[in-house]
Amino acid sequence: MALDPREFIRTKRDGGRHDPEALRAFVAACARREVPDYQASAWLMAAFLRGLDADETDALTQAFLHSGRVFDWSRMGVAADKHSTGGVGDKISLVLAPLVAACGVPVPMVSGRGLGHTGGTLDKLESIPGFRTRLEPAQMTAQMQELGVIMVGQGPDLAPADGHFYALRDVTATVEFEPFIVSSIVSKKIAEGARAIVYDVKCGNGAFMKTREAARGLASRLVATTRSLGAAASALVTDMSWPIGSAVGNALEVLEAWRALRGEKVAGTRSLTLALAAEMVRLSGAAQDTAAALRSVTHALDGGQAAEKFLGLVRAQGGDASALERGAPLHPAPVVVELSAPRAGVLAACDCFALGELVVAMGGGRRAKEDEIDPRVGLVMLRARGERVEKGEPFARLHLAGENAEFARRAESCFEIAGQAPPERSEDLVLERVTG
Amino acid sequence: MALDPREFIRTKRDGGRHDPEALRAFVAACARREVPDYQASAWLMAAFLRGLDADETDALTQAFLHSGRVFDWSRMGVAADKHSTGGVGDKISLVLAPLVAACGVPVPMVSGRGLGHTGGTLDKLESIPGFRTRLEPAQMTAQMQELGVIMVGQGPDLAPADGHFYALRDVTATVEFEPFIVSSIVSKKIAEGARAIVYDVKCGNGAFMKTREAARGLASRLVATTRSLGAAASALVTDMSWPIGSAVGNALEVLEAWRALRGEKVAGTRSLTLALAAEMVRLSGAAQDTAAALRSVTHALDGGQAAEKFLGLVRAQGGDASALERGAPLHPAPVVVELSAPRAGVLAACDCFALGELVVAMGGGRRAKEDEIDPRVGLVMLRARGERVEKGEPFARLHLAGENAEFARRAESCFEIAGQAPPERSEDLVLERVTG
Repeated sequence: MALDPREFIRTKRDGGRHDPEALRAFVAACARREVPDYQASAWLMAAFLRGLDADETDALTQAFLHSGRVFDWSRMGVAADKHSTGGVGDKISLVLAPLVAACGVPVPMVSGRGLGHTGGTLDKLESIPGFRTRLEPAQMTAQMQELGVIMVGQGPDLAPADGHFYALRDVTATVEFEPFIVSSIVSKKIAEGARAIVYDVKCGNGAFMKTREAARGLASRLVATTRSLGAAASALVTDMSWPIGSAVGNALEVLEAWRALRGEKVAGTRSLTLALAAEMVRLSGAAQDTAAALRSVTHALDGGQAAEKFLGLVRAQGGDASALERGAPLHPAPVVVELSAPRAGVLAACDCFALGELVVAMGGGRRAKEDEIDPRVGLVMLRARGERVEKGEPFARLHLAGENAEFARRAESCFEIAGQAPPERSEDLVLERVTG
Repeated sequence: MALDPREFIRTKRDGGRHDPEALRAFVAACARREVPDYQASAWLMAAFLRGLDADETDALTQAFLHSGRVFDWSRMGVAADKHSTGGVGDKISLVLAPLVAACGVPVPMVSGRGLGHTGGTLDKLESIPGFRTRLEPAQMTAQMQELGVIMVGQGPDLAPADGHFYALRDVTATVEFEPFIVSSIVSKKIAEGARAIVYDVKCGNGAFMKTREAARGLASRLVATTRSLGAAASALVTDMSWPIGSAVGNALEVLEAWRALRGEKVAGTRSLTLALAAEMVRLSGAAQDTAAALRSVTHALDGGQAAEKFLGLVRAQGGDASALERGAPLHPAPVVVELSAPRAGVLAACDCFALGELVVAMGGGRRAKEDEIDPRVGLVMLRARGERVEKGEPFARLHLAGENAEFARRAESCFEIAGQAPPERSEDLVLERVTG
């Protein structure tokens, strides 16, 4: 780059604003290793502490995007995708991708793995025997043309500069910074070829954003940056203070997703999927308004087209869905214990963060990237939020790799049983829609 | 280190205070390359922007100090040294070190090279034919025992962690930060074995510190950190808005230093040297108070003992002082041009920064570490500050490597000739003494 990296770092150190062209050049030079990591990380810290404005965030996103391959599905229509900020029991993508594809909208979905207390779509998919989440670009193109949907992990040629910066952020305590989070998310979605993107920004004790204000702020920034790159976008701020649907844990969530795909009225999962699917269909231009989009996706779910698309996807990516088709569990756990209400009352609240951490401890998630996942373990709710339970009555089942009284005790303590019903809480998890 | 570097960086990022033990462990791990440079540089930027308090600065200094060899001259007495923050025409060390040594105080002086617009003691010494500024530790010890004075460059085993951090600061725009400056200076002085240290903190248009307040702040911090490491210290804030003495340029300054050593009343140079020498002698305990110390150093200068010590030092380090002893220039410049007053008036002001930059451009300093120095070039004043000049009268001589009208024009434009005398300015350059 023509610019001296020291001058560039000094600009941000002193609270200045980067010229977008200079910012793009700096990131590109970092990605090509022309600027060494020690200069990149000094800049990361300066940006973290001094801030990046909207224009700088957009420029950073563009720089990440153009550091690698950018897929183009425009001959098939306007490709759509969804990104969730992560939650507990969030199996929505498994229902959503085939559902939206069944409505004729291309869905080139690139997902991640679980890290921390939240699950990851790739881990869930891999609990289907044989399912491959790594496809070569040529395979991706072929499957998109044939089926209109892929569900894969991020290849090394997708926004590699983001991968480089993410690795540095991870070791320099510069992860939790909105402009970095936004540019990382948006650049990958645009690079995979999505041009109509809905963001599910979760909010509550099981989400990274604890407050409605923080979630709304992130949602606005995601939508604005996505639009600055020429794609349509909206965001739903959704409730993450109770596990989504009824199951938490990889194979258990796939089974629940399958039930939802078959048209079962799985509380939470069905309504949230339909809301996000309608946004994707509307943003892609395949429906005139939200009401029409909602009719279209509800029809594709209840008419069986979504389930059929899912089976086609599983087969195309090498998976064996025969157990699901028989309605049998994919990976039965050797030990299943019931959680019983310690007293009569109403299921009032859940510490979703603690529950997510418990499932990780049980083997269902990872503490480090190289950890193996046990697809069998997890929790299935027998009662929904706000329902009454009698003393000693089972309200959930814990699926374990072996006997473990401590896990059962911890699971019970995640739930609060109150004397009276909690404030009215709609089954609809959507708290608000952010369109700009 | 037991501490996770990410946790350590996060503490400072969030404005926290480091435990001194943790800070020492982090720096030591960086110096051993157990913590990679990209983490060290993220921390440098976090510290730069969030600040380091006095205790943290002291801990950083200790960590630098103990990363390498620490000399001990205590069997010879209390060793003394001076550090100057850098100026234009600052040849004081050349007079000061032999002078203080002539008073019986050990002076293990470790100096630096010029960089930017200021000169460096090592470059000046090396304009003496044969003078070696690099001595092995065993040679340093032998010469200290024999002569009581050495004038050398920093060996690789003196505060190596400071060297490592300095190289990173240089490329990450984290140089100009008082706690880093203080820890770098003090750790090296303590490591060379000095236990009575005077700081010459320069202030004015030729200094890094432009204001009296900034200079006083740095002076206080230097004194406090030095004391926290168990050495005696004081600081003089001195005027750097006019070249020190009459010569600027390497060989020219050595000649002026020699004249001062011979007892000549070189304006500025003599008074500042005596003031700093008296501080060193007082701090080392070799005199009861400043007045007694001043009598002692004045006697050693005017009695010829300082000049004799200097000649001994030059010989011990391989130098040939015969030209000096004959009163002849060390490296005559091929071209000497006179600068003449464009109008009648009083020599009122000098842009010392511009003058220092000009001497660098003439070949007398470096832009990059690997640049060669031309010892011949420089400027010698014929008139002092505040003196009257007639129109066309020469007030200075420029020593050049070759004819260059542009250099002469630039040199003249560094000086301001006013209609009336400037505000009374004592020949004494000491603005204030900072003792705590």
